[in-house]
Amino acid sequence: MKIAVLPGDGIGTEIVAEAVRVLDALDLKFEMETALVGGAAYEAHGHPLPEATLKLAKEADAVLFGAVGDWKYDKLDRPLRPEQAILGLRKNLGLFANFRPAICYEQLTHASSLKPELVAGLDILIIRELTGDIYFGQPRGKRVATDGHFPGADEAFDTMRYSRPEIERIARVAFEAARKRNKRVTSVDKANVLETFQFWKDVVTEVHKDYPDVALEHMYVDNAAMQLVKKPKAFDVIVTGNMFGDILSDEASMLTGSIGMLPSASLNDSNQGLYEPSHGSAPDIAGKGVANPLATILSAAMMLRFSLNQEEAAQRIETAVKAVLAQGLRTPDIWSEGTTKVGTREMGDAVLKALA
Amino acid sequence: MKIAVLPGDGIGTEIVAEAVRVLDALDLKFEMETALVGGAAYEAHGHPLPEATLKLAKEADAVLFGAVGDWKYDKLDRPLRPEQAILGLRKNLGLFANFRPAICYEQLTHASSLKPELVAGLDILIIRELTGDIYFGQPRGKRVATDGHFPGADEAFDTMRYSRPEIERIARVAFEAARKRNKRVTSVDKANVLETFQFWKDVVTEVHKDYPDVALEHMYVDNAAMQLVKKPKAFDVIVTGNMFGDILSDEASMLTGSIGMLPSASLNDSNQGLYEPSHGSAPDIAGKGVANPLATILSAAMMLRFSLNQEEAAQRIETAVKAVLAQGLRTPDIWSEGTTKVGTREMGDAVLKALA
Ligand SMILES: CC(C)[C@H](C(=O)O)[C@@H](O)C(=O)O
Ligand SMILES: CC(C)[C@H](C(=O)O)[C@@H](O)C(=O)O
Repeated sequence: MKIAVLPGDGIGTEIVAEAVRVLDALDLKFEMETALVGGAAYEAHGHPLPEATLKLAKEADAVLFGAVGDWKYDKLDRPLRPEQAILGLRKNLGLFANFRPAICYEQLTHASSLKPELVAGLDILIIRELTGDIYFGQPRGKRVATDGHFPGADEAFDTMRYSRPEIERIARVAFEAARKRNKRVTSVDKANVLETFQFWKDVVTEVHKDYPDVALEHMYVDNAAMQLVKKPKAFDVIVTGNMFGDILSDEASMLTGSIGMLPSASLNDSNQGLYEPSHGSAPDIAGKGVANPLATILSAAMMLRFSLNQEEAAQRIETAVKAVLAQGLRTPDIWSEGTTKVGTREMGDAVLKALA
Repeated sequence: MKIAVLPGDGIGTEIVAEAVRVLDALDLKFEMETALVGGAAYEAHGHPLPEATLKLAKEADAVLFGAVGDWKYDKLDRPLRPEQAILGLRKNLGLFANFRPAICYEQLTHASSLKPELVAGLDILIIRELTGDIYFGQPRGKRVATDGHFPGADEAFDTMRYSRPEIERIARVAFEAARKRNKRVTSVDKANVLETFQFWKDVVTEVHKDYPDVALEHMYVDNAAMQLVKKPKAFDVIVTGNMFGDILSDEASMLTGSIGMLPSASLNDSNQGLYEPSHGSAPDIAGKGVANPLATILSAAMMLRFSLNQEEAAQRIETAVKAVLAQGLRTPDIWSEGTTKVGTREMGDAVLKALA
């Protein structure tokens, strides 16, 4: 078994280092190999996703990813910007199924913007399609408009699209996941306006016939954005396209108030996966040793579960993280009066100790 | 001056009736003419936006709109569904500038899902482009995929697009609006992924040169969805495209906890406008006399201000609404312990009394 370790930029190196220490401590048989990605790779090799990094990721059973991006790369041409690395990995590895849990940890309920009673015990799983939609649809670019409100004017355009098999496979992933949970799927679309999402809705409805034990509801994306705020606990599994999933999964993570705790997994057909925290590279606090490594450590647990078939080890990590929270240890992002403020490394130390 | 009154479906008729009573009481010189729209028009004439309704709306200086839609029309072909009426009105009247204030009324702060300190005094103005983007972009439809992940499979597709003049004019609307407020504009895009929104960002940045007194920041849509939850009061004016604006404006209204209080305006180049509450047709409570008419009454005030050049009358209405809240009168959607529960008609009566 081989893990590609891609720390990336900003706090990426610090938080991935802690996850690697945790993985090392498990004493399992796998090899880890580190490579540059994002801005760090651009600086060294002139490209955010160098050939060697992509090759390593493809060969590995799983990728442990930190975060990429920094304001200083904003002026680069789009193909050279750090986030192209993550899009390139998703595309090249065919990582179509993104799992984004939005969980509110008991001890961190107060950290939410929402009133405690609305988020206590929150546990939503957002499943976002990750290799289709307007993210990758062709054609796209700039041209002179030939119709619309201003024929003759410069315009830019993109193509939203979904094919039947793309919708079918992500719908199956969602129904299967719901079976292991509360057996409810909310499919989010904009069928009242978009052809793509009328088709999405139709195909999800068809696939649902194979899962009569799971309840399916359809919801417009604007309404979903509202219901997440109004009554987040009404959701179990949400399945949606790449663009809507980008927006709703971030909204949902922020609702928990502790995005620094939330892992994510992106899988392909053969359970090869990329695992990364739900938060970003946070260049403002990079190098200060204060970043929360728990989302990355929990991403490593998801990796053990989904790609490396090590359920027991995954649970050991998750139990250790809960123990550390119970001890009152908190990085600054989740700190509150009465708890103990610790840095990235101390948090990693505490998880290691709890594992032992 | 002529006002087209289009009550529509569900609670539309009840809430618009109260707004009409308020307008009547002002004793101003304008004519009001009512017509069917949405499901009601479909039932009577076989189309959600009959020719006669569209003609009336075009001739009028302003449209006072209730709400459209009901689950029972879900099985109709898309062109016959109630929401096509609203899309048709936007398109035919060229209503490109949608104003969606998200305001938290002092007395209703507790109704928000968010902690009171995060929303007390909240006052955001979302400006959504309303006649472009993927809502109207061609081509769109179904076809057999020739490339992508599954060549040969059925797929559906839509076209996202924005031309330079479309972006320029909505940017100007946003900067002008910010000048009358706190002089800060957040332009929301997804320039890291979409050609359309890289262009959006570039054009907004150019237009900004004419407004050096207004601060401009750019934010990705996923981050905006998070920041609205985390720190909504950090925003002043948000400007964005049709699709992102649909999602973010609904999220923002729900943050206030009192969407039943929020009006909206959709304007064209000549200040002709359509005015409607931010909430929907709520078929579940239709006909029960419990719907909150205040968002519609406040929409009528916006209409007086923006399209009928009656600032004083607009303020009279707004002052009356505040007085009614101060008296402790509440429809069920905003009711809380210690206040007086009233129905739609009683709320209208109270506003009329406060006006007098
Ligand atoms: C960095 C960006 C391209 C990416 C996305 O939009 O998918 C990010 O927002 C995410 O959600 O992983
Ligand atoms: C009904 C629907 C077509 C419409 C939209 O998406 O614009 C609605 O959600 C709105 O925001 O007015």
